[in-house]
Amino acid sequence: MQKRQMHLGVFLMGFGHHLASWRQADTPADSPEDIDFYIDIAKTAEQGKFDLLFVSDGLSFNERSHPSELVRFEPLTLLGALSIATKSIGLAATATTTYNEPFHLARKFLSLDHLNKGRTGWNVVTSYYQGEANNFNQNDHMKHDERYVRADEFVEVVKKLWNSWETDALVRDKATGTYFDQKKLHAQHHEGRYFSVAGPLNTSRSKQGEPVIIQAGSSEQGRAFAAKHAEVIFTAQQTIEEALKFANDIQSKAVEHGRDPSKVKILPGVIPIVALTEEEAWEKYNELQDLIVPEVGLELLSEYMGGFDFSQFDLDGPLPTELPEYNGNQSRKQLIIDMAKREQLTVRQLYQKIAGGRGHRLIIGNPEQVADDLQLWFESGACDGFNLLFARYPGGLDDFVELVVPILQERGIFRKQYSGETLRDHLGLDVPSFRTEKQVSNQTFV
Amino acid sequence: MQKRQMHLGVFLMGFGHHLASWRQADTPADSPEDIDFYIDIAKTAEQGKFDLLFVSDGLSFNERSHPSELVRFEPLTLLGALSIATKSIGLAATATTTYNEPFHLARKFLSLDHLNKGRTGWNVVTSYYQGEANNFNQNDHMKHDERYVRADEFVEVVKKLWNSWETDALVRDKATGTYFDQKKLHAQHHEGRYFSVAGPLNTSRSKQGEPVIIQAGSSEQGRAFAAKHAEVIFTAQQTIEEALKFANDIQSKAVEHGRDPSKVKILPGVIPIVALTEEEAWEKYNELQDLIVPEVGLELLSEYMGGFDFSQFDLDGPLPTELPEYNGNQSRKQLIIDMAKREQLTVRQLYQKIAGGRGHRLIIGNPEQVADDLQLWFESGACDGFNLLFARYPGGLDDFVELVVPILQERGIFRKQYSGETLRDHLGLDVPSFRTEKQVSNQTFV
Repeated sequence: MQKRQMHLGVFLMGFGHHLASWRQADTPADSPEDIDFYIDIAKTAEQGKFDLLFVSDGLSFNERSHPSELVRFEPLTLLGALSIATKSIGLAATATTTYNEPFHLARKFLSLDHLNKGRTGWNVVTSYYQGEANNFNQNDHMKHDERYVRADEFVEVVKKLWNSWETDALVRDKATGTYFDQKKLHAQHHEGRYFSVAGPLNTSRSKQGEPVIIQAGSSEQGRAFAAKHAEVIFTAQQTIEEALKFANDIQSKAVEHGRDPSKVKILPGVIPIVALTEEEAWEKYNELQDLIVPEVGLELLSEYMGGFDFSQFDLDGPLPTELPEYNGNQSRKQLIIDMAKREQLTVRQLYQKIAGGRGHRLIIGNPEQVADDLQLWFESGACDGFNLLFARYPGGLDDFVELVVPILQERGIFRKQYSGETLRDHLGLDVPSFRTEKQVSNQTFV
Repeated sequence: MQKRQMHLGVFLMGFGHHLASWRQADTPADSPEDIDFYIDIAKTAEQGKFDLLFVSDGLSFNERSHPSELVRFEPLTLLGALSIATKSIGLAATATTTYNEPFHLARKFLSLDHLNKGRTGWNVVTSYYQGEANNFNQNDHMKHDERYVRADEFVEVVKKLWNSWETDALVRDKATGTYFDQKKLHAQHHEGRYFSVAGPLNTSRSKQGEPVIIQAGSSEQGRAFAAKHAEVIFTAQQTIEEALKFANDIQSKAVEHGRDPSKVKILPGVIPIVALTEEEAWEKYNELQDLIVPEVGLELLSEYMGGFDFSQFDLDGPLPTELPEYNGNQSRKQLIIDMAKREQLTVRQLYQKIAGGRGHRLIIGNPEQVADDLQLWFESGACDGFNLLFARYPGGLDDFVELVVPILQERGIFRKQYSGETLRDHLGLDVPSFRTEKQVSNQTFV
């Protein structure tokens, strides 16, 4: 019998997730807006038989952001391009429910799902930054809890719209001139607290039925939302124990929603830095660390702590215990605080550590060491696979595909070939049956 | 000296603009959601050295719509794909200012302009249909005049956002770790009647500076808007006299805005049906006309007349003189009424006529006849070229590229090769200089 299979995503990010990767001599620093660069990476990931590529997003400019996020492609237009540059790999993007309309997002993601023939995923976020509100006619960013209430209704509307057309509704009978079967078209009208949407959508069902729903929030509301809606969960976990606790929590919540917990795939982020020898891997890492401009590292930390100003504190002392309330990414903030405590890091050590992968777990080692680590987590039940953040592109990804993927394949825990065609196929998720407006409202999951 | 050059666009529309084209045996009826079909067409148009491809859009489903519009790709994701499937041709799409936010559209179009390296155009529309309001939390569609006031401010915000980054703002100095020059980044804050947008945009200036602005409204407000903002104007004109009048009006209004009227390119729509002989061309046309389902033709006419019910009238009598007020596409309605009067058409003849190309001018003939007609209009000064609507794809486009383009090229009025790389290059439009927030507000055109 085939062993349980690991799922692997690649989190794209211009020249890489390490804060200083763009400063290396051979890194193309303009890659966040270079489509040829993205196409090459996508093709490498497809050669590596990864489940999916993922791009994040933000709707404001923030000079404290990671440099690869200062200017970059808008994800849905980028995925349009990657949809035809690739043949098999899944393609997922972040889009916020706080500053969008459900009709637009339902349509764009389903349109992408036609462009790439059923390989699309939507990472639902509620936005972190005040700056986004100010770009959308609003003075204040909606409060964290309210954002999730809106997100819940937003996803409900999107799912209704995705069920506008039954699979065989478009009969296109040339003899009679009947283009579609009126009985199989459903308006899926929605009337709720935030949204009033008449429907139906002017895009038909796609090959995988509906795009895959992904979610990444780890706060209390984020988990509740994920347990109800998400088919893939991106998360940041530093230890197996924490990851197991997280997985158990999500799975039991999913069961409460009447869902099969094996259809919720949990993928913690990891940053693998691999080379032929462990020593060489550490050299690669240290080379990147040495390129961090201290002010930039501190600004990134400050950004993750809600704009807190660390300049009044000793950089070589511990993290201040009293940090201000913050209406942004709660779980990332907590994760960084926990990491600082657990590893007894100074402020300087902390920003150096997050410079590499923003709170995600670093694995530095030779190919066997990296494969062992991934396999241990995977087989412990702590996760269903990983969302891989490479410190630098294309080098980090190239190394992983060349050195680690073959080991995972040899061990029988990762595919040698794609066995299906859609993202749902890769992830082992079923094609959702057609659901009426009422079935969607009742959260009837298939 | 080189003769004045004609500009040619191709208006994509699934299987074609003729209402019944999908019913022909060899037409792929599912093409409105088939990316491989679109890629083939795009490549043919590029072989034909056309200036641009254009896709229209609508944000609601309407069963009375043209069948190619019932379900279809969302244009911006589609253009993402076509951006890398083509190398030279311009790529333009419709997006409405009534049900969008300027930050989103500014970003998506500029992102596309990076994906295709400066070949993007945005056709600004204000939406026609009540159904769109109902998909966006609103009971009533905004009134025609107010829509244009909003559109004017919307475009102003978009242009400000497109000028967030000066061309050389991203210094990416690896030695010092300076990614961008703060002095060359401009927030371009906007505070107006409809929009409050802090900026800046998180996408840099593109190769052609800014995407090309296209506009298609021919109402009084539409013309005023076009004269102020548009660099390309799509229009429907049935006679040279009307077209000349339209062009003169636009040009004099453009001058009032301090613009160079030669930088406003007017492209009337035409539907060329061409074959080796005139007789064969008419056969092609009649074959399509015979496939029109009468009810469907009448519904399309009704749709264009604001939902007016013709069933109470004699189909073989004249168009009723009293038609209801209509808050939709005013100029198309008027154009159809004028055509019915001028050609003394019955209701039946009228719907048959618009079935082919929705109010656009049909040219049916052999290659010389079609080329003569286009040349006559072009050289009379009535237009700068044409937006070509093919009755059926791919056949209609294939015929035109094979039979008509070489004649226009031989006559020295159409390019044999692309001489530039961007859409602005093709159209002979300058790259706009960087403009401050205030310069954009003052409508300082370059």
